[in-house]
Amino acid sequence: MTIALRGTPAASGVAVGSYILYDPTPPLISHEQLVPEAVAAEKERLDRAIQASKQEITQLRDQVSERLGKEEAAIFDAHLLILEDEALLESAYQRIEDGLMNAEQALWEAADEFAQLLANLSDSYFQARATDIYDIRTRVICHLQGKPVPQLRHLQHPAIIVARDLLPSDTAGLDAQLVLGLATEQGGPTSHTAILARQLGIPAVVGATGLLEKLRQENIASARVALDGSSGEVVIDPDEATVVQYQTALEQYRKLQQELQALRTLPAVTPDGVKVEVAANIGRSKDALPAVEAGANGVGLFRTEFLFLDRTTPPSEEEQFEAYSTVLKAFAGKTVIVRTLDIGGDKSIPYLSLEHEDNPFLGLRGIRLCLAEKHQPLFRTQVRALLRAAEHNPASLWIMYPMICDSRELRQARAFVAETEAMLLAEGILKNPVSNKIRQGIMIETPAAALLVDVLSKDADFFSIGTNDLSQYTLASDRMNANLVELHRPFHPAVMRSIAQIITTAHKYNRWIGMCGEMAGNPRACKFLLGVGLDEFSMEVNSLNAVKQIIRSTTRGEAQEIVQRVLAAESADEIEQILL
Amino acid sequence: MTIALRGTPAASGVAVGSYILYDPTPPLISHEQLVPEAVAAEKERLDRAIQASKQEITQLRDQVSERLGKEEAAIFDAHLLILEDEALLESAYQRIEDGLMNAEQALWEAADEFAQLLANLSDSYFQARATDIYDIRTRVICHLQGKPVPQLRHLQHPAIIVARDLLPSDTAGLDAQLVLGLATEQGGPTSHTAILARQLGIPAVVGATGLLEKLRQENIASARVALDGSSGEVVIDPDEATVVQYQTALEQYRKLQQELQALRTLPAVTPDGVKVEVAANIGRSKDALPAVEAGANGVGLFRTEFLFLDRTTPPSEEEQFEAYSTVLKAFAGKTVIVRTLDIGGDKSIPYLSLEHEDNPFLGLRGIRLCLAEKHQPLFRTQVRALLRAAEHNPASLWIMYPMICDSRELRQARAFVAETEAMLLAEGILKNPVSNKIRQGIMIETPAAALLVDVLSKDADFFSIGTNDLSQYTLASDRMNANLVELHRPFHPAVMRSIAQIITTAHKYNRWIGMCGEMAGNPRACKFLLGVGLDEFSMEVNSLNAVKQIIRSTTRGEAQEIVQRVLAAESADEIEQILL
Repeated sequence: MTIALRGTPAASGVAVGSYILYDPTPPLISHEQLVPEAVAAEKERLDRAIQASKQEITQLRDQVSERLGKEEAAIFDAHLLILEDEALLESAYQRIEDGLMNAEQALWEAADEFAQLLANLSDSYFQARATDIYDIRTRVICHLQGKPVPQLRHLQHPAIIVARDLLPSDTAGLDAQLVLGLATEQGGPTSHTAILARQLGIPAVVGATGLLEKLRQENIASARVALDGSSGEVVIDPDEATVVQYQTALEQYRKLQQELQALRTLPAVTPDGVKVEVAANIGRSKDALPAVEAGANGVGLFRTEFLFLDRTTPPSEEEQFEAYSTVLKAFAGKTVIVRTLDIGGDKSIPYLSLEHEDNPFLGLRGIRLCLAEKHQPLFRTQVRALLRAAEHNPASLWIMYPMICDSRELRQARAFVAETEAMLLAEGILKNPVSNKIRQGIMIETPAAALLVDVLSKDADFFSIGTNDLSQYTLASDRMNANLVELHRPFHPAVMRSIAQIITTAHKYNRWIGMCGEMAGNPRACKFLLGVGLDEFSMEVNSLNAVKQIIRSTTRGEAQEIVQRVLAAESADEIEQILL
Repeated sequence: MTIALRGTPAASGVAVGSYILYDPTPPLISHEQLVPEAVAAEKERLDRAIQASKQEITQLRDQVSERLGKEEAAIFDAHLLILEDEALLESAYQRIEDGLMNAEQALWEAADEFAQLLANLSDSYFQARATDIYDIRTRVICHLQGKPVPQLRHLQHPAIIVARDLLPSDTAGLDAQLVLGLATEQGGPTSHTAILARQLGIPAVVGATGLLEKLRQENIASARVALDGSSGEVVIDPDEATVVQYQTALEQYRKLQQELQALRTLPAVTPDGVKVEVAANIGRSKDALPAVEAGANGVGLFRTEFLFLDRTTPPSEEEQFEAYSTVLKAFAGKTVIVRTLDIGGDKSIPYLSLEHEDNPFLGLRGIRLCLAEKHQPLFRTQVRALLRAAEHNPASLWIMYPMICDSRELRQARAFVAETEAMLLAEGILKNPVSNKIRQGIMIETPAAALLVDVLSKDADFFSIGTNDLSQYTLASDRMNANLVELHRPFHPAVMRSIAQIITTAHKYNRWIGMCGEMAGNPRACKFLLGVGLDEFSMEVNSLNAVKQIIRSTTRGEAQEIVQRVLAAESADEIEQILL
C-alpha cells in the first residue's frame, strides 16, 4: 500500500528504487539460562561468532582501505582492537560460566559494562569508543543468531538507504556510487546525514517521523521507496503511477544536472558583468582534484581538522606538509584558503585530552584552543607545515583563523605565524620568508567579530563568513538540538541582517569577503548574497553549478531589489517566501 | 610571613581579620584492612558517625529554617534523605563485612559507586544529587576521624571565608552578618561566589591562584588575612603596618558607604537634569521590602526561577500569587518587572525531567521552554498567578520574557497570556481584564534580539538588556569556563557596541529600555550607559547608591564624550582605561 510521508528536504534530487533499512538495533536476545553441561559449547559458540566478526571486519577494512584510503578504514581497526580486548572477552566468558548465561546475554552485559566504564571517563576519545562497542556488539550478536549483519558499509547494488539516523562511523567507507538516496527518521537539515548527502550529491530527506515504523508495520521489506530531496516527500511502496512520475522527475533532474554540468567551465558572472568567485569547501587533500574538475575557482575552505580526527597521535609536520602541498598544487595559480585547526570539546581527539566543558560550543575551540599554551605545540606543527607548503607551491595560500572574536586574538595568531617563520628561517628549512606571499584572514562566525569588522579589517587581509556557527551564536541555539528547529530556519531575519552588515562593512574597509557556510551553497540564498556584494561563494562541489546558474541569470538590479525586500522582512517565513 | 597575592576583584570593600579555610576535600583515608574480629565494632563505628552526622544536619536544618526560611534549609533535607538511603548504607556495611575495609574506606567506595550511578543518569536532578553525596561523605568521614566538619554554614564569629570555590549548596544558610569577606582560588567575576558577594555586599576577591597552597605551606592557620575587593589584593598573615593600613581603608570604606547611604532617598538625576530610574534585581519576595528601603525606584528584574528551584514539585498558583502580590504590594505605585521562568538544561528541576543537552546554554531554555507544549502547564500556572496578582495590586506589573530571538516567539508569549486571561475571566476568577493595565516586554540577551530591536518594538512594550547572557552569546563563550577569562573582560568592545546600538534603536522606536545584567550595577559602566541614554539601571541593592552617586555627578555632555571614546576603542584594555 502506498504511503506518503513528509520530512525535511536535505539534499536535492529524486530517487526511486529498492531500499536498505539500516537500523542497527540488535534483535531481541533471550535470557534463558543454560544447563551447566552446555557451558563449554556456549563459550565455543561465542568464540566462533567473534572470529567470524573479526574476519568480516578485516575484510571490510581491506576493501575500504583499498577503495577509499587508510583514513576511511581506521574505524575498522578500532573495532578489531575492541574484539581483542582481554577484559571484555574474559568478562563475557565468565558470565557464561558463572552466570549460566547464553552467549548473547553474556556478550550483551559484558559490552554494557565495558561501554559504561568508557562512557564515564571524562576523555571524549573513550566516550566515542563506547559507541563503537555497541556497534561491535550488534555485529557479534547477529552472527550468534545467524542473522544478517546490517551492511551499510558494503552495498552490493544501488539502493536507497533508510535509517533512524546515520553516524559518522556508519558512513565510513560508504560507496556513494551505489547510494540512490538517503531517508532518515531523525536529524535536521544540518545533521551529519544531510551534510554528507550534499557533499556526495545524493538526494536526501531527513526527519521523516514515523518512517521506520511505517516500513515495518506494512511488512513490505521487499518493496520500493521513492523520495524527493527538494520537497521532502518520501513514498513507501509507490504504485506504478508514482514510480513512473518519480522516474520522469529523475530523468528531468539528470537532464538538468547535465545542463548544469555545461556550466562547469564558464565563469560565475552576472548578465550585467558582476563577476564573483565560486570555490570549493574540502575536507581532505584527495578532494582537491575533483573540486578543480568540478569547476571550482579555488578553495574557499580547507577544513584541516579532518587530518586530526580519528587517530591516536597528531599528524606529523611531514604528513601535513604533504596534504597542504597536494591541495596547493591542484589549485596552482588559484587561491586556497586553509582554515587552521578548528576543534574543541565536542570532538574526540584522544591525544589532546581536552577537559570536559558544560557547553563545548561556547568553550575552548578554534583559535582559542590553538593559542592556549598547552596546545601551542600542535598549532606550531600545523603552521610550520603550512609555511613550508607555501614556499614550494605557486598557488596563493590564504591562512584563515576560526572563532576569532577580536583583534587581540588575531594579532596573537599573526605573531605566532611570524615567530614560526623566524624559526624555520633560522633552522634553514625555509630559504626565504613566505609571509609576504601569503594572506592571513579570519572566519566571521562569532557575533563579536560581526560587530567588529571595521576594527578587525586593520589586521585581517580577508574575511569569510561561517554561516553555520554565526547562526548558532546569533540565535543562541545549538543547531543539533532537535527542540530548536523552529529557530533554525534557513533564513532567520537576524542572521540575514548580520550577513548584510558584515559584507557592507568589509567592503567599506576595502576587504575581500567570502562565505563558506551552508548558505553559500544554497541556491535560494544566492541572489541575496550577490546583491549585498559577496565576493566569493564557497560550497560543497555538488552545488557549484546550481549556484553558478543563478548568478549567470541574475542582474545586479534584481539582486539588489531582493536585498531590500529581505532586509525589510520581519520573519523567517517572510524571507522564505521572498527567496522561493 | 606576609604574602600578597593578586586575584580578580569581585565585590568592592575591604576586610581584615581572622579567616576560615573552607576546603571540603576530605582528609586522607587509610586503606588498612581489618582483622575479621574487628568487623562488628567497625560497623558500629560507622553507624555512630552517621547518627552524629544526621543529628548535626537536622540541627543545621532547623537553625537555617528558623533564621532564613524553609527554602534555604531544603538542601539539608536532601542530605538527610541520602543518609537514610538503604542501598548506600547496605553497600558500605557490606564492604566492611565482606571486604574487611575500615569504615572510612567502605563509606568512601560505597558513596563513590552511588554517586557515579546518579551522575550517569541523564536527569540533571540526579546529577546534582551526586554532588550532595560527596558533600555528605565528607561530613561522615570527618566524624569518623574525629576531625571538625567544615562549618561554613554556621559561623560562630565574624571571619573572612577562604575557599577553593563556593557552590550554591555551600552558601545555603550562610549568615552574611558574620562574613567579613570572601576570597576564593577559583572562579571569575561572574562566578557564584562573586554574584553572591555583590548581592550581600561582602567584599570579595576571586581567582586568587595559589591562595590555599600558600595558606597551607606557611602553616599559619591562626593568622589573619586582609583583602581588597576593588584591587583584588589578598594579603596572608599581614604585618602590623598592613593591618593598620587595611583597617584605615575599611574605616574610609565604611564612611563612604555612610555617605552613599545619604543618597538613598535622593533621585538618580544628573546635575543638568537627566533623570533615570535605579531599580532592584530581586530573587525572592522577601527581598522586596529591603529593596524599597535601600531606595530602589522599582524592581527591574524579579527572577522568578528561585520559586521553582530546590524543590520536588512546582510551586502552586496560590504560592506564586502570594509571592508576586508581596512584591507588588511592597512597590505600590512603582513598576515591578517580573521575568517569567528562565530555566533550562543547566538547572536541576526534578519535576520537569529535562532532556540532556550537549550545550544547555544554547538549548531549550527561557521562553523556549515555557512555550514548548510539554511545559506549557507550568507556564500557565505562572501566568495565572501573575494576572491575578496584577488585579489586586496598585503597582504596575510589567511581564518580561527571557531568551526571545524574534517576533514569532514574542507573539506566541503574548497570545498565551491573552488566552490565560480569557480563561480566568471565563472562570470568574478575574473580575475584569488586566492585560490593559500590564505591560509586556522582553529581555534583550540574544544577538538575534539585539539585531531586531526595531522589529521587536512592534510587539514589545519595553526592553531590558541582559548583559550577562548577551556577552556570552556575542563572544560565543561560556562565562563559567575558566579557560576563557581573557574573553570575558568586563567591557568587550563588541558588547559595548551592541549595547549602544540596542539603546539607540529602542529610543528611535520610542521604547523604554532598561538593563538588568551585571553591567547596570557596575559604577565603571555608569557614565557610558547614561551617555547612550539608558532609562533604567537595575541591580543588586547594594550597588544602588554607588551608581546613584555617579549619575548625580555626571553631566550629559561628560557622559556623551565617554560614549564617543568607548565606541571608538578597539579593545577591552582600551575601554577599561577609559572607564577607570
